[in-house]
Amino acid sequence: MNSTLILLRHGQSTWNAENLFTGWWDADLSEQGRSEASAAGTLMAEAGLRPDVVHTSLQTRAIRTANLALDAMGLLWLPVKRHWRLNERHYGDLTGQNKADATARFGADQVKEWRRSYDTPPPPIADDNPHNPNADARYAHLPTDVLPRSECLADVVTRMLPYWFDAIVADLSGGRTVLVAAHGNSLRALVKHLDDISDADISGLDIPTGVPLVYELDANARPVENKPVLERALGDAEAIAAAAEAVARQATAGAK
Amino acid sequence: MNSTLILLRHGQSTWNAENLFTGWWDADLSEQGRSEASAAGTLMAEAGLRPDVVHTSLQTRAIRTANLALDAMGLLWLPVKRHWRLNERHYGDLTGQNKADATARFGADQVKEWRRSYDTPPPPIADDNPHNPNADARYAHLPTDVLPRSECLADVVTRMLPYWFDAIVADLSGGRTVLVAAHGNSLRALVKHLDDISDADISGLDIPTGVPLVYELDANARPVENKPVLERALGDAEAIAAAAEAVARQATAGAK
Repeated sequence: MNSTLILLRHGQSTWNAENLFTGWWDADLSEQGRSEASAAGTLMAEAGLRPDVVHTSLQTRAIRTANLALDAMGLLWLPVKRHWRLNERHYGDLTGQNKADATARFGADQVKEWRRSYDTPPPPIADDNPHNPNADARYAHLPTDVLPRSECLADVVTRMLPYWFDAIVADLSGGRTVLVAAHGNSLRALVKHLDDISDADISGLDIPTGVPLVYELDANARPVENKPVLERALGDAEAIAAAAEAVARQATAGAK
Repeated sequence: MNSTLILLRHGQSTWNAENLFTGWWDADLSEQGRSEASAAGTLMAEAGLRPDVVHTSLQTRAIRTANLALDAMGLLWLPVKRHWRLNERHYGDLTGQNKADATARFGADQVKEWRRSYDTPPPPIADDNPHNPNADARYAHLPTDVLPRSECLADVVTRMLPYWFDAIVADLSGGRTVLVAAHGNSLRALVKHLDDISDADISGLDIPTGVPLVYELDANARPVENKPVLERALGDAEAIAAAAEAVARQATAGAK
């Protein structure tokens, strides 16, 4: 029986405007981000989509996105599961730095490699980094063996996929609909897996914010149809293309 | 190992002001109710309470209360479980009626008995009652054998306790702290069990809204200390007494 997967990347956070590397830092949604989240719920409702269960990361901006979207759909009561494996990429010691500072310190080429290469993680987070997210109570149960200190996208794929197979795929069974509210890089990791995107090509893919992406999946949790990820987006095609370009420009110009 | 149970009754709903029997109807919080919920979170944080897990009913007013309280505590990321067994009492065919109409139709003594007696349920909900909540999608998985059509408080005790023993007590193990965001009558049912209140005496007990009630429980999930429920309330004692009186007055004068 085919199932439906909806991916929703949270909208603008309070750290976006400041051009700071965020990663596991728990930046909240900005007002614009909250509006994007509610609008995403309206888009899903208008498309006749009705999730049966919701998965989020442990980060406030994804949780609030899910809450606002569900509220717009009248579905606050849906069962919801949260897991750190859906978190944004851990940006290591870049966390809390802005791009200009990082570029001055490490050089533009190095910073670009950390940001866009598939397998080069930034330097590990320093214990005394004032924005070290690892001491947060929400990660207190994680052994240091599994708690990341920095991640490249390849690392995100490795830690995200077990949750995909064990938790999300299980919830898709019986032809159900699952909403995943998460982050640019945890969703890139999932899309890379679903759409068989190469390590080289994933660098060029950005996930639009606040736009539900809809996958119809077969009984093996593989897409029934192969098509570009932007064609899976709900809403006005021109607006989505413009949003994707804006994300790509931001990725080129700044931090994410 | 002792554990901590926090009970939180949602605050004012949009139907309170209209003096309507609400029960399973999904009335949302009013603005005042939202403020009460946030204030409850602040009270818990100030008292140094830190839930490990949250349980709510399937009703928006309890879910939103939990979300607002957790948001005020910076704990939106906590695991949360929802279940219909924590729902408000099902008010049967009184659902959606106001007290004046019900009194005119059935007489004051009859309405009082339905409202305050332990074991007399109101008439079952009519299929064509315009406020019949039973067709809502959130109850679609419930067989008609278990889906209530009306409930007295004794019925609520019977359907709530299995969730207490199976889900909440399990989450208390290991000395953890559990927050339960629910309703006047599902919490009365739980307090009746915990404090061994007789069928006769429970009629006189009202749970204050928006005020966290804190139980320290032993390894058998029994209270370590016996005391009146109002003495378990966080916050200013005079304000709590005033709130409880207001609830009692409302219970005497109107619907709940």
